[in-house]
Amino acid sequence: MRGIDALPVFPASAKARPNGHLEIGGLDAVELARAQGTPLYVFDEEELRDSARRFRSALDVHYPGESSIIYASKAFSNVALFRLLAEEGVGFDVVSGGELATTQAAGVDPANVHFHGNNKSEEELQRAVESGIGAIVVDNLHELALLESILERFGKTQQVSFRVSPGVDPHTHAHTTTGVLDSKFGLAIQTGQAEEAIARAMQSPRLDVAGLHFHLGSPIFELEPYEEAIQITMEFAAQMRDKYGFSLRMFSPGGGFAVNYLTTDEAPVPDTYISTISKAIIQGCDVHGLELPAISIEPGRSMVGTAGVALYTVGATKLLPDIRTYVSVDGGMGDNIRPAIYGSQYEAVLASRMADTEEITVTIAGKYCESGDILVRDCSLPTPAAGDILAIPVSGAYCIAMSSTYNANPRPEVVLVSNGEVRTIRRRETFEDLMRLDV
Amino acid sequence: MRGIDALPVFPASAKARPNGHLEIGGLDAVELARAQGTPLYVFDEEELRDSARRFRSALDVHYPGESSIIYASKAFSNVALFRLLAEEGVGFDVVSGGELATTQAAGVDPANVHFHGNNKSEEELQRAVESGIGAIVVDNLHELALLESILERFGKTQQVSFRVSPGVDPHTHAHTTTGVLDSKFGLAIQTGQAEEAIARAMQSPRLDVAGLHFHLGSPIFELEPYEEAIQITMEFAAQMRDKYGFSLRMFSPGGGFAVNYLTTDEAPVPDTYISTISKAIIQGCDVHGLELPAISIEPGRSMVGTAGVALYTVGATKLLPDIRTYVSVDGGMGDNIRPAIYGSQYEAVLASRMADTEEITVTIAGKYCESGDILVRDCSLPTPAAGDILAIPVSGAYCIAMSSTYNANPRPEVVLVSNGEVRTIRRRETFEDLMRLDV
Repeated sequence: MRGIDALPVFPASAKARPNGHLEIGGLDAVELARAQGTPLYVFDEEELRDSARRFRSALDVHYPGESSIIYASKAFSNVALFRLLAEEGVGFDVVSGGELATTQAAGVDPANVHFHGNNKSEEELQRAVESGIGAIVVDNLHELALLESILERFGKTQQVSFRVSPGVDPHTHAHTTTGVLDSKFGLAIQTGQAEEAIARAMQSPRLDVAGLHFHLGSPIFELEPYEEAIQITMEFAAQMRDKYGFSLRMFSPGGGFAVNYLTTDEAPVPDTYISTISKAIIQGCDVHGLELPAISIEPGRSMVGTAGVALYTVGATKLLPDIRTYVSVDGGMGDNIRPAIYGSQYEAVLASRMADTEEITVTIAGKYCESGDILVRDCSLPTPAAGDILAIPVSGAYCIAMSSTYNANPRPEVVLVSNGEVRTIRRRETFEDLMRLDV
Repeated sequence: MRGIDALPVFPASAKARPNGHLEIGGLDAVELARAQGTPLYVFDEEELRDSARRFRSALDVHYPGESSIIYASKAFSNVALFRLLAEEGVGFDVVSGGELATTQAAGVDPANVHFHGNNKSEEELQRAVESGIGAIVVDNLHELALLESILERFGKTQQVSFRVSPGVDPHTHAHTTTGVLDSKFGLAIQTGQAEEAIARAMQSPRLDVAGLHFHLGSPIFELEPYEEAIQITMEFAAQMRDKYGFSLRMFSPGGGFAVNYLTTDEAPVPDTYISTISKAIIQGCDVHGLELPAISIEPGRSMVGTAGVALYTVGATKLLPDIRTYVSVDGGMGDNIRPAIYGSQYEAVLASRMADTEEITVTIAGKYCESGDILVRDCSLPTPAAGDILAIPVSGAYCIAMSSTYNANPRPEVVLVSNGEVRTIRRRETFEDLMRLDV
């Protein structure tokens, strides 16, 4: 298809300029790529802020209780990004000491940070407690004991929530399905482990047992799994109230909200997710006579995914008659491993020829020495020439976050664009950086 | 199985100490892990040197012509490792400016470096030419033109070889199969592209057209694909001689030599690969009346794979009755993405209880926030407790090389062990390192 037909999955500021170039954030993407070098990851600042605002306003409209947006940092952890999101009133879900340290470097209020993860180390838990973190989301009984001993040592009390596993299948990729019973994550409600944790925690003077959390996986295109999991969790909350006097003050249905990677995708919009979730929580509280808890939602992909666009320079093209035309770019599985690991699909456009109608079917290959290093299989483009700039949209989440220095290729620069201004938020790695840890 | 039953896939120096601990390179692996911290990647120096020597002696025995070992750097690129291998007379196959820079930092003679890759940039080719690199292995016609223009500008001549695609399927994972016709790599013999490249290059005064190269994929457990591809390539060499006066002075059948990951694997030993390859080349030369070329083989995995052992500390254990027992460790897909991306299988042992006969079936999960973050599915171990040290063998290739800082987890320390001595060759990343590029 023509480049302009792919604009619906780009940031809202994206358009075709009269010269046929892609524009993002008021800038000519081709000039930007040539000025900064490629691969270049471009984040649209307004799109980032709008994502936060869309969730905020959906919560304001649909949920009468207290609510917060907790960004799932693992989608892309960066100091400048954290500052920007904090300005929008967003809190942070961290899953490691490194992500916690990043929120600290960004000056985030620790009260707005929640600590997740299936195997938090003693050192990480200690740092979290010392930081004054808002909540530790306890994943398992080992962690519960570890946390209690740390709190005892520090003479501190900590607000905690529990990650429960409701046993609901969200029908996403097996790699990213987390809420089913056979999962490394969370305390299963079905097996009695969740109850055991609550019962134990309620007796601990060091723990402020505030709530429950689940996360089903990502990306989830359906709404029913949220409804079903909320129903199960609310019923569990009521049972815990009746048996142990547990009070559900905090509740999180996690994240996993999908975005459209392809123009043919039909992900629900934030408003639809939040409306569904809110109704289910209100109804669950009603059925079980619970007070409305403060809720937090945890968008990661849906907060930063669409805001990011990857720009590459085209190099070699290889025509294999009747088989395939390979177009190689200067990045690949090192900066975006999602196609190789999850079979993820993307659109791609020639940023330099957005309105061209001439088309051939090509496969976009990376420069990594592996056949699995394919970014986009069978997409339609104007015949690319060496030096053309190729743009892949929806590259904001889980690309830079999972990037490696495989093949000793330096990791890309990341810039923020807005109103014709560009600001580097992560500089390009150098060859010296690559060898910096070598002794 | 008992830990000691897995020793065949560990470095030769590995054994169980009287205290039941795993020993590697004369060191107690449990004490080493506790002293250096985990995750820790341990490379056995003697195993590395022996791997090089095994290939060297196999070449000496089976191939009467000149021969060299060219380490496929992409398996693990590290300055100290390069120095050690260079001491063993090994040269280097690099696929990027970063790997080339690493050979330079290690003081490697550029004459022993070959430059591979499907999309070398102008800057990379320029650096390679300036460095005095031994050979550039030209992958495609775009690169050929780019290289000629650079050489023209510099007024230099460069020895080149051509990567041809012989159209042979080595029956390995689709991600790592590279010699088939539908590949982003190389000049296909069948389509006439390889001939076009040779014909053009033979007319260029700047190119010293020295040879041919192919690489079928990795890991290849069969020998026939090498024989078949050598036969096709030798026939092509003879045709090019007859048509264009091409002389095959250098020849490389690539690498892709398998190693045993599981004790039940039966990879051919280096001697068998080299014997097969040598016979096929000698026969091909005989059939087509060619002089014996200087050959180079390109082991990566088979040079460093078995030498590396990953050590982790056990954290949370989660028992899901009748379903699965998850044992979480402090590393995972960030330091070893192979299980997630290729479905790779590994043995695992409790380094602290090598001789224990009591066993349960567990799944080793990492600490990354993804269900796909599973290191080993269904392996037998003595019931692990928090604090136990878990060892995963055959972790020398494509683990640290593909490692990321996903979830903002710092990348592991890498040490070299030998005769009871330990030396850090890559230090552990810090939280500060993680944010170093953030502006």
